[in-house]
Amino acid sequence: MTAKILNGRPIAEAIKMEIKSEIADLREVHGFAPCLAVVRVGDDPASAVYVGNKLNTTEELGLTSIHHHLPAETKNEELLALVQSLNENDDVDGILVQLPLPTQIDESAILELIDPKKDVDGFHPINVGRLSQGRESLVPCTPAGVIEILKRSGIEIAGSNAVIVGRSNIVGKPMAMLLLQENATVTICHSRTRDLPSIAARADILVAAIGRPGFLRSDHIKDGAAVIDVGINKVSDPSQILELYDGEELEKRLAVIENRGFTLVGDVNKRDAIAKAGAYTPVPGGVGLLTIAMLMRNTVDAAKRRRGID
Amino acid sequence: MTAKILNGRPIAEAIKMEIKSEIADLREVHGFAPCLAVVRVGDDPASAVYVGNKLNTTEELGLTSIHHHLPAETKNEELLALVQSLNENDDVDGILVQLPLPTQIDESAILELIDPKKDVDGFHPINVGRLSQGRESLVPCTPAGVIEILKRSGIEIAGSNAVIVGRSNIVGKPMAMLLLQENATVTICHSRTRDLPSIAARADILVAAIGRPGFLRSDHIKDGAAVIDVGINKVSDPSQILELYDGEELEKRLAVIENRGFTLVGDVNKRDAIAKAGAYTPVPGGVGLLTIAMLMRNTVDAAKRRRGID
Repeated sequence: MTAKILNGRPIAEAIKMEIKSEIADLREVHGFAPCLAVVRVGDDPASAVYVGNKLNTTEELGLTSIHHHLPAETKNEELLALVQSLNENDDVDGILVQLPLPTQIDESAILELIDPKKDVDGFHPINVGRLSQGRESLVPCTPAGVIEILKRSGIEIAGSNAVIVGRSNIVGKPMAMLLLQENATVTICHSRTRDLPSIAARADILVAAIGRPGFLRSDHIKDGAAVIDVGINKVSDPSQILELYDGEELEKRLAVIENRGFTLVGDVNKRDAIAKAGAYTPVPGGVGLLTIAMLMRNTVDAAKRRRGID
Repeated sequence: MTAKILNGRPIAEAIKMEIKSEIADLREVHGFAPCLAVVRVGDDPASAVYVGNKLNTTEELGLTSIHHHLPAETKNEELLALVQSLNENDDVDGILVQLPLPTQIDESAILELIDPKKDVDGFHPINVGRLSQGRESLVPCTPAGVIEILKRSGIEIAGSNAVIVGRSNIVGKPMAMLLLQENATVTICHSRTRDLPSIAARADILVAAIGRPGFLRSDHIKDGAAVIDVGINKVSDPSQILELYDGEELEKRLAVIENRGFTLVGDVNKRDAIAKAGAYTPVPGGVGLLTIAMLMRNTVDAAKRRRGID
């Protein structure tokens, strides 16, 4: 079998087009556009890129945005005060504090202070709890994106055996709750799981989110499974690449390392997935592309709920 | 194999003795006893019994308690106001609103109003979320009791395959989070699960919480598994009993139906569990006996955290 490649780009574009038209409607009928406030602290270069992409997307879709960039030495109290002021600002629909934060900041305290109604990352415990209880909530963007990919690719979730490898608060655990809500039978695996290959190889839907490049191989994959690779690992060692890829892909990867210093590798061995799975989300080009679209979706949902619009 | 019977009573007694001595210490060193407020609305006879048992146990262990019994026609606003006053009462450490509530009451609104620090049932979404995130929280009593039974019976959780049948907010989902925290590989099954027997029969630890008397049978049970039966079903039809039990147990059950009108039956076929499992919690006499002990545990934990005592 050669796996169908589930490209994230067209799915992300479709979602963004839906959001764009929804925002146009909101402007026309209700006279406002949802507003996302993004807070960045310090000068982490990756964070700068991520925040830039998010702000560009707000503009592309017609949302408004507020950007606060604070110095690396910002005090915890100062950041708390900023979040509080964004909570109180009635024009702000969504608040995103870009992680990671400098060490002097109490990350949990910041994330718990964000008004749950504006918590577009879905990390506030009250949103986590509501998601678990099957109630209306704002859902973390990456697992929400996985559900969109599955649904829009016609992969049946209800009744399937879904296996999630990884139990992080950002991906693994919310992913489990979302798949359960969609009536999958859900298994959560992790570093302490015994005989992972035999458990993973029973999955109709296999979600990899462990942060180990190319870790899941042929013996983890059931013939014809949908393999969703959430891992995004930077690999700069060419010898590691030689083990994972061959042919054109290998050449491309080595060229990328030469040019950029690293290449992005998923948690699943791509060659094995393509040979054995029924459908596969590549890295890069798969799940990662959905994340910002889902952030925009959350911002629009938050705006409508806050403002009492159906 | 004949399963070792995991009786709930001695475990519950051991936990209660620990709590009793802890409360004696709190009285001596800190000059107070934790206080549980119990609210009952209407005249549901089962609720009257449950609340009575809870209040008796507070007395037995040296906690103090407040009991509010409101008429069945209590308005939603009245109950909200009572909960609010208990939130504000600094002497109250734990608040329990006995379910079910009359239909004019908005149950979610009541449960979300309870101060999460006093939420000894662990049903507030913020506690659900914190549990999922692996942070300090108040944990629903029944799944917390299951963990105590497993640990105090020397059943190894880490690395085991745990299968939970049932995905309720009160048992199935928090049970999954607790077993995951203890490093089990966790599978959640439900009514839409395909081929439940083969999945259940891979479980080293099988937790049944579906509310269907005797539903899990021999083909659901792995040889030597720990079978934890959370189901408590009232069965009044003798013909159903004839299918589930034989010998002395059958005679006893039929006599109980004759005397009381019903007998309590778990979700697991007891005969099959005893023949095939390695360990088994009977119904009655198993998990159910732990619930009140865990409620007292939560009340003491809530009191210590609120009052800043280690």
